[in-house]
Amino acid sequence: MFLGHEGVGEVLQVGALVQDFKEGDIVIIPAITPDWSSLGAQRGYAQHDHGALAGWKFSNFKDGVFAEKIHINDADGNLGHLPEGVDLVDAVMLSDMITTGFHCAEQANIKPGDRVAVVGLGPVGLMALAGANLMGASEIYAVDCVPFRYEVAHKHYGATHFIDFSKAPMHTQILELTKGVGADKILIAGGGTDILSEACSCLINGGVVSNVNYFGSGANLPISRMAWDVGMGHKTIKGGLTPGGRARMEKLARLLQTKKLSVKPIITHHLEGKFEEIAQALAWMKDKPANFIKPVVKIKW
Amino acid sequence: MFLGHEGVGEVLQVGALVQDFKEGDIVIIPAITPDWSSLGAQRGYAQHDHGALAGWKFSNFKDGVFAEKIHINDADGNLGHLPEGVDLVDAVMLSDMITTGFHCAEQANIKPGDRVAVVGLGPVGLMALAGANLMGASEIYAVDCVPFRYEVAHKHYGATHFIDFSKAPMHTQILELTKGVGADKILIAGGGTDILSEACSCLINGGVVSNVNYFGSGANLPISRMAWDVGMGHKTIKGGLTPGGRARMEKLARLLQTKKLSVKPIITHHLEGKFEEIAQALAWMKDKPANFIKPVVKIKW
Amino acid sequence: MFLGHEGVGEVLQVGALVQDFKEGDIVIIPAITPDWSSLGAQRGYAQHDHGALAGWKFSNFKDGVFAEKIHINDADGNLGHLPEGVDLVDAVMLSDMITTGFHCAEQANIKPGDRVAVVGLGPVGLMALAGANLMGASEIYAVDCVPFRYEVAHKHYGATHFIDFSKAPMHTQILELTKGVGADKILIAGGGTDILSEACSCLINGGVVSNVNYFGSGANLPISRMAWDVGMGHKTIKGGLTPGGRARMEKLARLLQTKKLSVKPIITHHLEGKFEEIAQALAWMKDKPANFIKPVVKIKW
Amino acid sequence: MFLGHEGVGEVLQVGALVQDFKEGDIVIIPAITPDWSSLGAQRGYAQHDHGALAGWKFSNFKDGVFAEKIHINDADGNLGHLPEGVDLVDAVMLSDMITTGFHCAEQANIKPGDRVAVVGLGPVGLMALAGANLMGASEIYAVDCVPFRYEVAHKHYGATHFIDFSKAPMHTQILELTKGVGADKILIAGGGTDILSEACSCLINGGVVSNVNYFGSGANLPISRMAWDVGMGHKTIKGGLTPGGRARMEKLARLLQTKKLSVKPIITHHLEGKFEEIAQALAWMKDKPANFIKPVVKIKW
Repeated sequence: MFLGHEGVGEVLQVGALVQDFKEGDIVIIPAITPDWSSLGAQRGYAQHDHGALAGWKFSNFKDGVFAEKIHINDADGNLGHLPEGVDLVDAVMLSDMITTGFHCAEQANIKPGDRVAVVGLGPVGLMALAGANLMGASEIYAVDCVPFRYEVAHKHYGATHFIDFSKAPMHTQILELTKGVGADKILIAGGGTDILSEACSCLINGGVVSNVNYFGSGANLPISRMAWDVGMGHKTIKGGLTPGGRARMEKLARLLQTKKLSVKPIITHHLEGKFEEIAQALAWMKDKPANFIKPVVKIKW
Repeated sequence: MFLGHEGVGEVLQVGALVQDFKEGDIVIIPAITPDWSSLGAQRGYAQHDHGALAGWKFSNFKDGVFAEKIHINDADGNLGHLPEGVDLVDAVMLSDMITTGFHCAEQANIKPGDRVAVVGLGPVGLMALAGANLMGASEIYAVDCVPFRYEVAHKHYGATHFIDFSKAPMHTQILELTKGVGADKILIAGGGTDILSEACSCLINGGVVSNVNYFGSGANLPISRMAWDVGMGHKTIKGGLTPGGRARMEKLARLLQTKKLSVKPIITHHLEGKFEEIAQALAWMKDKPANFIKPVVKIKW
Repeated sequence: MFLGHEGVGEVLQVGALVQDFKEGDIVIIPAITPDWSSLGAQRGYAQHDHGALAGWKFSNFKDGVFAEKIHINDADGNLGHLPEGVDLVDAVMLSDMITTGFHCAEQANIKPGDRVAVVGLGPVGLMALAGANLMGASEIYAVDCVPFRYEVAHKHYGATHFIDFSKAPMHTQILELTKGVGADKILIAGGGTDILSEACSCLINGGVVSNVNYFGSGANLPISRMAWDVGMGHKTIKGGLTPGGRARMEKLARLLQTKKLSVKPIITHHLEGKFEEIAQALAWMKDKPANFIKPVVKIKW
Repeated sequence: MFLGHEGVGEVLQVGALVQDFKEGDIVIIPAITPDWSSLGAQRGYAQHDHGALAGWKFSNFKDGVFAEKIHINDADGNLGHLPEGVDLVDAVMLSDMITTGFHCAEQANIKPGDRVAVVGLGPVGLMALAGANLMGASEIYAVDCVPFRYEVAHKHYGATHFIDFSKAPMHTQILELTKGVGADKILIAGGGTDILSEACSCLINGGVVSNVNYFGSGANLPISRMAWDVGMGHKTIKGGLTPGGRARMEKLARLLQTKKLSVKPIITHHLEGKFEEIAQALAWMKDKPANFIKPVVKIKW
């Protein structure tokens, strides 16, 4: 099976039922391409129709985008027109990084003035942070252990405090900064199985822990009974896969178009050439060289 | 310290700042009596101002209601006028059972037609179930192991299916009933430390687990990583202490007044006499005799 | 063009892309049959994709259901399976009456204990009232001038007070009943161009006026500046066409299946025979004989 | 009666019940100072307890802030501590301009990527625009007829398009810019009695018109029946007075503290001296000299 679920491409051929796209269109390809005419979509969770996460089809249920020709199911519902003035390379960040990061912030229902912590400053975490900032967060506690990442978060995306978890536990630092009150919202884009509980330990009563992290191992995600205030503290725990689809892609693309959001600071590594270049990009993602956040490969024909 | 946090009483004396109550008024006394002029109240969580659950003052921070004379802080904010036509004994259920049970249902955001499971058919669970029914639930899966309680749930409050957890795990039975889809909302008013996880195992993607249970022991509430769909399944976990206060008491009291809700089926045991009778009520609550749900003691002067 | 947008039928033939329905299935046909793979659907307003109200296709953009054979666009998205145990005749009410009435109540965000007024006790208004009751309304003020309709509203659907607008203005009566406070929510399923304003005159600050009425004449719907509190009173005015679609049909059908809702009281007139019987039904709808609410015609082959 | 409802001051004396403020504290004084221990506050509308808008007490129900000594009811609930690093003059904008403007944006429920129109670029309108921008709006259509105001809106607060209503009707211009779709949200901070209707004419189905404008004359606010899609177009009309109170003041103040919001661009005119200077400020507000937006008077003792 081909890998890859992020990309921008050109329409080569359209199916008989496609109405809004034609050969030659430059399109945003979302990572999540669900069946929009489904019960799940009608109740607001297209990404989980036919089973949890089943809207994530590329490289799970069908070939991914690292191929010369790829197939998009329901093109009218799942492709986005690239708006005028948006850079091709930037637009690749819409497929997953922007939409997933923003989903994390939106899921937390950030309000103007909120104090928000963001855990994990990889590309998704930085976009969650950018989303929180764009939704009006005031203080933003950026949790990671790599100073370079915090520099990006602070300089470009509104982070106000660096929480270096290698120096002291996150909850200790956040409680200190908030004088014991806790953050209003905590966005999780990294961390181990104890991160939800750790977040509850420094969350205000009435706050939200919003996760978009993939938990890849461990039987359980334990929530400390006391940190969760014996079950009665109004500390809401959410976790979700980003929605995909055309409406969302085109809406978020307008943030790039109007310069309200820039993704250039997270695209630290650029490659250009044949498909072979992807191997280098994957190697970087595995090894994480200094000052690496996210690579983009421009395929030449 | 005096015990007790549920009651209906008569106003004997009012403080200098009290405007809306006077000697002789019959009043509903909510279990939760927060400080309404507080930051917590202004942001919608009065019950947690000055610390988690700190709005629950009776028998925690001040004497409870099992006394001849009791003090109510902020009487205008914390007492409710008993509406005409509402029975004194019934009204005692407003203090905690109705408001807590309904909070469980409201926190889950029940929508007309939802399929709802309710765990634990004690008096709070039955009121959560009644609340779910009153908010438009269609199928209601009542989870307990005591057939008598299910009879009450079915006959009076809209339960449609009995999930006897002594026969098979809850999640197995609910998945079977919903053909693998899961319940839309799961209300928790009982169960051990694994109940949140068990609920996630039979919850639809996009659903809510809403807890009002007090978890009294155990270090952690473990959430199965797989049942929580590796963090990305939109299975929201909430838990909260009921709000208190006058507006809520008087609003919910109207459901008794208009006969939209009856609490007579849960008041299985009646006592009348001096304060000594309370000992008997407490003994019943501990020993749970057959067909016991909730006692009320009418104190005679 | 054929008329008609409410019905239950049998599947005669399915298109090549249809997966969930087959010949012989008995199906609920919603009045609103939008294109589910559209931008409008993705942003939550399928009924308005391709223009306001454009999801209402039957007898507007395509032939309606008063025909031997009818075509359903996107059958998987727009038909509903009739659940076991639901009467065929009752199920016809799902197409429009139930879904529109309930949309009116849902749009108003009814909360347990709310005091709700419902304007116009035709079949949609009665279903709005039933919806409000099912969502937990306490006092329900039923506004009409026909005592028989109120009898139905009171006996079957939870209305608590009759507001006969032929005797005194609605707002005067509601303000009197609520001691000057106003209703929490006002549902509009009838009335002239001044009804929104009249509703604002007896609505609590923070309340909602929810309209599903079709306003058929007049240039403007004037809102009294003073009744709307000079623009600053938090009196929200909403109006909308019901969503359609399979998920909603099957979800609401469960309320019939579980007997949480009965529509028999509104189906006052039954006809059985050939298509010619429809003329009689339409004549009744125009002339409104005594004790008439809604007719159903059962077509025999 | 003294006038004035915006200000920052010093605490001279505290009442016996005040806990969180002491002599010498520098405090933000909100325009809206409701009774927080009231039924209205408990149901989320403190500003309307004891009648619509009755939480607006200064110069309505009690002396305003243009006085040497002023009284604050419920100081703990109604004053805000000025956070470290926030300029005194800037902070005056919190009392009304920021909180009212942001309420307009929050009431509209702006989502990242929304296309938002803002009507009226006075100081409240500019803060509504800043709020919309801070909540993630992409395109922002700034509606006014004074180019200088648009310059401020564009340069400092994220406006992307100038809609000069002196050249063509607002709805024509917005429909053209959005290719017939309409804006997602329209914020009203100016305009005559027809502005709600004009807004509905260029609003997407599913959108919100959010008003904070005081309508001072005219019997009615007419809504065009066709622009409101015959009652069924899901065009929600909201209007409200900002909430006040300490929690909100301190939360919004953090946006100034963290430099996420600057109000310097709207404070175009500064005065310093005795109370007599206020006359000059009021004269400017009436006459609106060139490049005038908002004056602040610093009173010297």
